[in-house]
Amino acid sequence: MQTYSNIRPIRWENGVLILLDQRKLPDQESYVSINKYKEVAAAISEMIVRGAPAIGVTAAFGVVLAALEFQDLENWRIKLDQAIEFLKESRPTANNLGWALGKMRVLIDATPILDISALEKEAKSILKEDVQQNRLMGKLGAEFIKERGSILTHCNAGALATAGYGTALGVVRSAFANNKIDRVYADETRPWLQGTRLTAWELAMDNIPVTVLCDGASSSALRNKKITWVIVGADRIASNGDVVNKIGTYPLALLAKYHNVGFMVVAPTNTIDSNALSGDDIPIEERSAKELFEYAEKKFTKNNPSIWNPVFDITPADLIDVLVTEKGVIKNPNAKKLRKVIK
Amino acid sequence: MQTYSNIRPIRWENGVLILLDQRKLPDQESYVSINKYKEVAAAISEMIVRGAPAIGVTAAFGVVLAALEFQDLENWRIKLDQAIEFLKESRPTANNLGWALGKMRVLIDATPILDISALEKEAKSILKEDVQQNRLMGKLGAEFIKERGSILTHCNAGALATAGYGTALGVVRSAFANNKIDRVYADETRPWLQGTRLTAWELAMDNIPVTVLCDGASSSALRNKKITWVIVGADRIASNGDVVNKIGTYPLALLAKYHNVGFMVVAPTNTIDSNALSGDDIPIEERSAKELFEYAEKKFTKNNPSIWNPVFDITPADLIDVLVTEKGVIKNPNAKKLRKVIK
Repeated sequence: MQTYSNIRPIRWENGVLILLDQRKLPDQESYVSINKYKEVAAAISEMIVRGAPAIGVTAAFGVVLAALEFQDLENWRIKLDQAIEFLKESRPTANNLGWALGKMRVLIDATPILDISALEKEAKSILKEDVQQNRLMGKLGAEFIKERGSILTHCNAGALATAGYGTALGVVRSAFANNKIDRVYADETRPWLQGTRLTAWELAMDNIPVTVLCDGASSSALRNKKITWVIVGADRIASNGDVVNKIGTYPLALLAKYHNVGFMVVAPTNTIDSNALSGDDIPIEERSAKELFEYAEKKFTKNNPSIWNPVFDITPADLIDVLVTEKGVIKNPNAKKLRKVIK
Repeated sequence: MQTYSNIRPIRWENGVLILLDQRKLPDQESYVSINKYKEVAAAISEMIVRGAPAIGVTAAFGVVLAALEFQDLENWRIKLDQAIEFLKESRPTANNLGWALGKMRVLIDATPILDISALEKEAKSILKEDVQQNRLMGKLGAEFIKERGSILTHCNAGALATAGYGTALGVVRSAFANNKIDRVYADETRPWLQGTRLTAWELAMDNIPVTVLCDGASSSALRNKKITWVIVGADRIASNGDVVNKIGTYPLALLAKYHNVGFMVVAPTNTIDSNALSGDDIPIEERSAKELFEYAEKKFTKNNPSIWNPVFDITPADLIDVLVTEKGVIKNPNAKKLRKVIK
């Protein structure tokens, strides 16, 4: 069975970064070509590309573009440093962003001359490894789905959120291929509607049955539909196993526990932030009121009431049954178990 | 301090029912005049008027309009019976609808001739009592708010959902007048955005500080904001105390428990359905995909994926700390305690 669509949100072609514009999906499949690092940062901020692993991969190519821009300058090293800082500021929460930029910086620091082809090779390898890791995690996670039934997911942790195949949706793809999945229930995921626009589109491309529901209805799905697992991705994981992911993940974890449904987080180890002792040490991005009050410039209200729009939340480690990484699976994650895996 | 706005979503003037069109709020404050009972049913189905108590009051006037329409017919009794059945079908979940129609039917059945003025008097009294009950419940509920802080609410259980003053927001109004409330956090409440459009508007009218957030962010509010109580209304309450209310209520109750925040339901006893042994006996309305995929005819996706749109959920009685009714307050409601109150 073909369960691996060829969705490639990030491509690198002849020194140009090509991003699938996720703001326009699913109605338009259009691509943005970028050859300036500042445009890479803007693409991340404005969510042309989103999803923690995808942000990391994109930023790595941003460094390559910066190197191409600054190669003829005498102070290229300073300029590159500044570019890396600039890229790092594009969004605060995804750990993979800092991780990928860190890898690029190590390479720059290690060489006395500017070796663009080495940087390009590194970025390409980050991209390639991301897909490989996703395929491996997909296999590891799917082994936990014993009984045929439905999966509940939140946001989009799919091919679109990565270099390809997906983290949470990688597990879905793998388990679907093994006839373990009837249907995926996808939370619409306010305010950005990643579920409605991205997950529904992506799964339909692979002919995986998908049903969209309001975030508030996921509790009813857990009560009334035969959900075997709740499976999500992660934007950053603290060293104690607390998971920061799209706003609305934390209530799902609690609801899953209450309904005796397993809660699985799928994320590569570059999502783990060893400097964060717990979720409280992780910056939670707050975005504009526009996301709450309008869609495609159609305003829901002209009243402009006060809003609070945190776009991530913290799921305490003790609500997580399984954390799937490319280095192995951790049941009931805690600080000790995480240290073992990332060592 | 003035804390009681004069929002009157339902008025009866010279044989005409005047409804505030809640679909158009907050941008337009427009009224619909109705003098045919079928238009009353349509107004309920299409949510020109919504909120369980408001639906009940509206339906009562629908019976008066039917009586005016059929008074000259010989078979007025059969026609009125049919009209009541028709009105009853307008929405399935709110108990107050059947309750109000039941009251009108008893009056019709009790008299050999069609006494329109008695029916009109009854409908007016249902309306008047609703506001009185809300004021009383507001006072009773506010007594449970000991510490000054913020309130989290869901959907709109305000003046707009009733004949005036509100159930959950009645408690808010009363507690705010007593300086117990800093701010109300209002879930936007997908898919119909009652929080963004109605609760934010209604509270702003009374100068009560209000902040709108995504439904998925309410868990973060419980974690990070000083929330003293979660306060909601109800559409139907089973005889064991299970509460059916707007989709997204159930997760809030669970989250409140997890965060040691009180969970209060405010609803008049006509919300209680003695025939429903538990929440599972209560019909949960499912509405159109349109509500999920477009706003004001602006589509979120042209893909039309499969959807599931249940608009209510069931909160188990054991997650409810306080049920406030006009006949008294029930702590940790169960079947026995409910029987005592409704007797």
